[in-house]
Amino acid sequence: MTTSERVESAIADRRSIVNDAIDDQLPVQKPERLYEASRYLLEAGGKRLRPTILLLIAESISGTASPADDYRAFPTPDGGRIDVLSAAVSIEVIQSFTLIHDDIMDDDDLRRGVPSVHREYDLETAILAGDTLYSKAFEYMLDTGAPAARSVSALDELATTCTEICEGQALDVDFESRADVTTDEYLEMIEFKTAVLYAAAAATPAILLGCEQETIDALHRYGLDVGRAFQIQDDLLDLTAPSDELGKQRGSDLIEGKRTVITLHARDQGIDVETLVPENPDEDDIETAVERLKAAGSIDFAREMGHELIADGKDRLEVLPENEAHDLLEGIADYLVERSY
Amino acid sequence: MTTSERVESAIADRRSIVNDAIDDQLPVQKPERLYEASRYLLEAGGKRLRPTILLLIAESISGTASPADDYRAFPTPDGGRIDVLSAAVSIEVIQSFTLIHDDIMDDDDLRRGVPSVHREYDLETAILAGDTLYSKAFEYMLDTGAPAARSVSALDELATTCTEICEGQALDVDFESRADVTTDEYLEMIEFKTAVLYAAAAATPAILLGCEQETIDALHRYGLDVGRAFQIQDDLLDLTAPSDELGKQRGSDLIEGKRTVITLHARDQGIDVETLVPENPDEDDIETAVERLKAAGSIDFAREMGHELIADGKDRLEVLPENEAHDLLEGIADYLVERSY
Repeated sequence: MTTSERVESAIADRRSIVNDAIDDQLPVQKPERLYEASRYLLEAGGKRLRPTILLLIAESISGTASPADDYRAFPTPDGGRIDVLSAAVSIEVIQSFTLIHDDIMDDDDLRRGVPSVHREYDLETAILAGDTLYSKAFEYMLDTGAPAARSVSALDELATTCTEICEGQALDVDFESRADVTTDEYLEMIEFKTAVLYAAAAATPAILLGCEQETIDALHRYGLDVGRAFQIQDDLLDLTAPSDELGKQRGSDLIEGKRTVITLHARDQGIDVETLVPENPDEDDIETAVERLKAAGSIDFAREMGHELIADGKDRLEVLPENEAHDLLEGIADYLVERSY
Repeated sequence: MTTSERVESAIADRRSIVNDAIDDQLPVQKPERLYEASRYLLEAGGKRLRPTILLLIAESISGTASPADDYRAFPTPDGGRIDVLSAAVSIEVIQSFTLIHDDIMDDDDLRRGVPSVHREYDLETAILAGDTLYSKAFEYMLDTGAPAARSVSALDELATTCTEICEGQALDVDFESRADVTTDEYLEMIEFKTAVLYAAAAATPAILLGCEQETIDALHRYGLDVGRAFQIQDDLLDLTAPSDELGKQRGSDLIEGKRTVITLHARDQGIDVETLVPENPDEDDIETAVERLKAAGSIDFAREMGHELIADGKDRLEVLPENEAHDLLEGIADYLVERSY
């Protein structure tokens, strides 16, 4: 297998394990409609990249087989056992909660190729489904069986992360009405809105397995680097990938007037990004806009920034032992900016 | 002072302490609009009943002065110090988060005499303000300085409580479209939607101060009893208190078709509760409807149920030592069903 095949296979293996764990931990129970709505986006798909990173870091730290034999009784370096899979589910469930509420805020109709939760159900149910996943994520993070002091640290990481995600989303909303957003402000926004959850996914296994603070901090920074690169790649794919692969309208960021590193670069080259696409644009309008962004060098600028962040992120991994999981984590970092959907 | 004056004075003292603590722990910071919206309902008022119960139970358990000298360095029975005020703020902040999201779901215009958050700001900001308070509440509960194992238990109580609140709200929404809701179903719904947060307020100080499980459980049940009585009194006040005292439209439950123990009783007496008020009713229409509910015995039925729950709740307090705080907790139980707003 090539490296990228090994990486995609590793993601697929762990996605399957995480999906089974979600079915196990988040059954449809009374009130059924609430739990169906809570599970709806999780069932619609998703690559499970954050929980995959969490599991791989756990594997690398503990030096287990990759994949491990039993993530629910996962060996800690000091001879204990913890349920690291419950922590992985927690992170994915937070991700799902934020998608549900973000889709309401942006009034997006589609997500993962299906109607968004507030479209498929209704506004009330979508708000409540997000709120339910929010507390469930804390329940799952409490269910790892880790020593209490480590659980407290993991909960602290999770709570702080959620606050920062809200702050990032608030900045994102605010930026839509501001013409003078700088690239640095944008990078801070995506750090909060997107990258901190990658950072939590990366730091949490180190916390639960009892690593030194230096290791925890380095892995946190790995998550911040690859998470920002992931968001920049998402911004690129919004412009360059076909709608059916995206599972949503291509060019939606341009249509909604979202600031991205691409449009900010274009603005600084003198392009009027507000008028790049007409109202109710068709595919040709989007294509024309993208050609202008390419010609301005904005697409290449974003791509390069993503690759630099990935290189930084891979350097952070030197705190981990050399093993199969470590290699896969480097490969996933590359995958995040090479993926086509 | 009469007993009820002593109780109201005890609530006022602790409300002032809790308000200062909220100012201290939830400052307006960047992004300012998000934090202003998060603080907006907390600043608009509120009796702080749940944190008051939390503080009084802590006082009773530790046998401190009432009010205590310093809730931020509160003595535990085993000689430690914890910040019990941070736990009190956590519970109030959860309450505020649920109000913000509930007002969106019910599309209520007024709360505490001011526009609801989604009216004063906008839908996006209101969703995000609720989400921010949600994680902040977990941060505050992690900031008590209690031994890790007790913090884990308190977090577990908080997370489970939040899930149950969501389940209760989902049942409440569901009930609006069902004509066959039973009184037992209603009582289960308000247990989840309302009473569990009183239960968390009552159980949490016992958890953090290291009490026996039996004490924790009894206090949890105290919260469930008085919390259900509180909701029944809220349902009564919605019908009987003037709009300016309520801080919202009188009779809003009738207008919105909410099931309450009062309307369920009336329905069982043969009253068609769907047509009790016309569309866009005026004060006279509400008054006529209330007179019919009184004549059917439905108002008295609810009042009696509230008083029975309060009597049960007071019995649960026998796990606490006899002291001033214990007396005040009995008084607060009575206050919950005697209050006029």
